[in-house]
Parts: sequence; C-alpha cells; structure tokens
Amino acid sequence: MQFCQARVEHALDRTLPTTGTTPTLLHEAMRYAALGGGKRVRPVLVYAAGQATGVKMERLDAAACAIEMIHAYSLVHDDLPAMDDDDLRRGRPTCHKAFDEATAILVGDALQTLAFQILCTDNTLEANAETRLKMVETLARASGSRGMAGGQALDLSATGHELNLTELENLHIHKTGALICASVRMGTLLNPDLDSEIVRKLSHFAKCIGLAFQIRDDILDVEGDTETLGKTQGKDQAQNKSTYPSLLGLTGAREKAEEFRQNALQSLEGFGEEAAPLRWIADYIIGRNH
Amino acid sequence: MQFCQARVEHALDRTLPTTGTTPTLLHEAMRYAALGGGKRVRPVLVYAAGQATGVKMERLDAAACAIEMIHAYSLVHDDLPAMDDDDLRRGRPTCHKAFDEATAILVGDALQTLAFQILCTDNTLEANAETRLKMVETLARASGSRGMAGGQALDLSATGHELNLTELENLHIHKTGALICASVRMGTLLNPDLDSEIVRKLSHFAKCIGLAFQIRDDILDVEGDTETLGKTQGKDQAQNKSTYPSLLGLTGAREKAEEFRQNALQSLEGFGEEAAPLRWIADYIIGRNH
Repeated sequence: MQFCQARVEHALDRTLPTTGTTPTLLHEAMRYAALGGGKRVRPVLVYAAGQATGVKMERLDAAACAIEMIHAYSLVHDDLPAMDDDDLRRGRPTCHKAFDEATAILVGDALQTLAFQILCTDNTLEANAETRLKMVETLARASGSRGMAGGQALDLSATGHELNLTELENLHIHKTGALICASVRMGTLLNPDLDSEIVRKLSHFAKCIGLAFQIRDDILDVEGDTETLGKTQGKDQAQNKSTYPSLLGLTGAREKAEEFRQNALQSLEGFGEEAAPLRWIADYIIGRNH
Repeated sequence: MQFCQARVEHALDRTLPTTGTTPTLLHEAMRYAALGGGKRVRPVLVYAAGQATGVKMERLDAAACAIEMIHAYSLVHDDLPAMDDDDLRRGRPTCHKAFDEATAILVGDALQTLAFQILCTDNTLEANAETRLKMVETLARASGSRGMAGGQALDLSATGHELNLTELENLHIHKTGALICASVRMGTLLNPDLDSEIVRKLSHFAKCIGLAFQIRDDILDVEGDTETLGKTQGKDQAQNKSTYPSLLGLTGAREKAEEFRQNALQSLEGFGEEAAPLRWIADYIIGRNH
C-alpha cells in the first residue's frame, strides 16, 4: 500500500502543472488539493486490479492519477461553504480556506478536465486509442450525473429526510461506489483479452468493497477523532444525516461491513496470489482508523 | 445561424438526461442551464467549420453539444456568488438563483463530465476511436487550467490591477479564445485528410474572431442594455475591470474589433463558397447587439 501511495504521489507530482506555469496561483492550488495526503484508496485499487489481471504497474500510473484527480476535485467542491462547508481535509485547511472560494471552484473544474486529458495524452499508458477512449468513457460515466456527482445530488436532497437502508445504499453506490468500481475497472482495461467472467467478478468485488468503505466511513464519523481522521469528526450526526450506524446501530453497521468484506473476498475465489493486493485492500478498508 | 441554433438546441435536448431520470433535480437544473437560450456561437462555429471542410452536418451534433456543455458549465460556475456573483443570464435567473448554489456547483461539474462522455459514446459522430480521442483531447486542452479555466483564474487575479493590452489579450485568448478555437478545430477533426495548411488558416481565423468576439462583448457591456443583453450591463466598469474600451476608448475598441474581423476574413482567402458561413459569423460577431 505504502509503495502504491508513494508511486501515485510521484506520478501526480509529475503530471500536475508546475507552480511556475501560468496561471501560477491556480496551479499551486491544484497541487495543494491533489498532492501530499489522503489514503489513495482509489489509485491503490487501480494498481491492485492491474496486478490481478496481469497489467504492468508502469502502465497504470495515468489511470491512477486520473481517478485521484476526479476524487480530489470532488472533495474540493464538496467542502465548499455551499456544500458541506468544511474547514479541514487530510489534516490541513480545505482548499477554499487555504486559498479562496473562487479559486477552489476553478481547482475542482480544472482537476476534472486534467483527469480526462491525461488519459488521452500520457505516454506511459502504452495503449491504443480504443483502450484510452474506453477509459475516458468509464471515468466519465462513473463521475457524472448518473455516478458520483449524482450521488452528491442525492445526498443534498436527503438532508432533513430519514432514508431507509435501500435508499442509503443507492446513495452510496453513486456517491462513492461508482468511482471505486471505476478504479477496479480502469486497472483491468489495459488487458483487452480479459475474460468477461473475470470482469464480472472484479466488478462485484468492487461494488462490495465500495459499500464496506462507506460503512466504515460512517462508523469512523461516530468513533474516530478529528486529528486521526484529518477531517471534522461527528459531521453526519451534526447534520442529521442518515448513516449505517444511525439505521443499524454501531454493532449492526460493523456486521454489515464484515458481510460486504466476506462477499468481496468470495468474488475473488478462483484467483490466486495475483489477487493478494485486492484481498489486502478488502481487509484494510474495514480495519482502517482514518 | 437560426437553423444551427435550432439544430444544437434539439441535439442538446436529446443528449441531456431527461427530468424523469434520477437524480431528477440535478437533471432539471442541468437542462435549465444548457437549454433554451444563448447565442450558441460555439456550436454554430462547429457547424460552419465542418461545412468549410466537407463534414456532414449530421456528424457534427455531438461536438456542437460537447462544446456548448463546456461553455454552459463555465457560465454556471462563473455566475456563482464567489465568482462574478450574477443574478441574470440569458434573460433568466442564473442557475444558483433558480435552484441553489450547491446544485449549481454540481450542474457545472456534471455538464463538464457529460461533454467528454458524449464524445466517447454518441453514435451520430460516426468516427473511429482515434478521431474521438483527438476530440476529447482538443476539448480538454481548451477548457482546462491552460485554457478556459486558466483564463478565468487570470481574470480573478487581475481584479484591482490595470492590465496592459498584451496582458488583456492573453487573458482573453485563454478565457474565451481557447474554446472558440476548439469549436473550429472540432468541426474539422471529422475530416482526417485535411491539409495542415488549411488547419493552420482556420486556426488563425478562430484566434482572430475569438478576440473580436471579446472586444464586442466589452463594448456591449458599456453600450448595451440589460434587457437586450440578457445579463447585467455595466458589470466590467462596476468591478473596475480592464477592458478594450477602458484601454483604447470606445472608438479604438471598435477599430480593433474591425481589424481582427479583417484579419479573420483574410485567413479565409483561398476558400470558396463552403466558407460562407464562417465569413458570416465573423460579420455577426462584431455586429451583434447581445
């Protein structure tokens, strides 16, 4: 994990415009938002899914960066005063606090654009136009109005209503699940000869760990502390949001996360040692403390 | 022009998610921001550039929609309180006034994503993966931190400083020029056999009309009225922005716009009747009253 985290950090550093490039303030703010922190769960998934399907690590950097740029843009916009209004992210002031709101809006916009651009242009990807285009399409579907951005819209409209478990799951399948599924899918797209049954199994794995990830997030919002989390603890309850612990209790939520982890691992039966990193991530996701 | 405006309106209507698709409020707001108004200068340029280079109109709808979605997203975000803080756009309340700020942020985000997605998926484009990928790349370069979003960042950082003519031109080459150039380029990408000299001439045409367009915008901000413009008149002066009229006076600005129009038309010498729509647009741009 640490190796992959360092690898994507280095790749992002290389891919993002330097602070000496005009407009310098925007580029500085883009680097602030994308570099130097975060668990990098999505890039790690890209590398792990690539390893499970025989794709060289060197070819996965662009996909890992693109996914992380989309994730970083969504955090910058979600933290804005008009959205979740948060001051702390990855243990540092949020982008609009460190810079200003207008810059933060542009940072999110430009990070999104850059994610699509590098899938077109990055040479280390070593892929033909068909594969690159499939990656652009996969990332766009996962992050648009019927994916991540749609999930955030569902989250906004859920404020003040109590959701049932099905509605909550639907929200998270969009808000966090879509991009996690895209991470696994993009890691495998560079192997064009992949059997459709393997793609199906990995897709089910991704869906399960996506939900486990969100349940763990909800539990940490109750149990964690702001310093370890690097973001404000207790926000869900303060905003009166429906969460897995609020619907199932803490014990019920923990059991649900474990159930999804087991489901995820089952979908990897038939894989050998090449899927060890994916199995490790399934364990990490529900064991993590931030 | 009216035919192309109606054509892109219809294509946008067909391409945008319906208001019955979840999340319904987000999709309603996306349609509000993208449909029912605007001069559609960029889509009209896509069609005109396609006609000048022998591309069937039916194949240009996706590029026209993608460009207009990027433009619409930039207007929604630029109008936000943290940016230009505007209440009126295309004669109607701005997106964050008609809905709310959080929704408007997501509308912009999701319109950007959809622009890239349709270039991957729209069947009417009838293009191979190489061409589609080139269109994604062209649109991304034009709209990112070294294109349109970068121009907006330069605009923000220029507030309170007086720019000289070179700085002002550089700002507008990014803020509005990049997307206008991309409109012309994307209209021609569907003809892969195009001579590089023709591409160069059309690119110079686009650069000139982009600047003429901006000068006319600056003049209309002084001379126009809010009702005809469909947006608040006199904003530049109220915000103490450097503009062509503030640097050159109204007469000087008009002469400058005419100079760019002449330059644009000169770059079309050697083209025949097929470039008539492009010539017409050059005239329209500096003659328009909104």
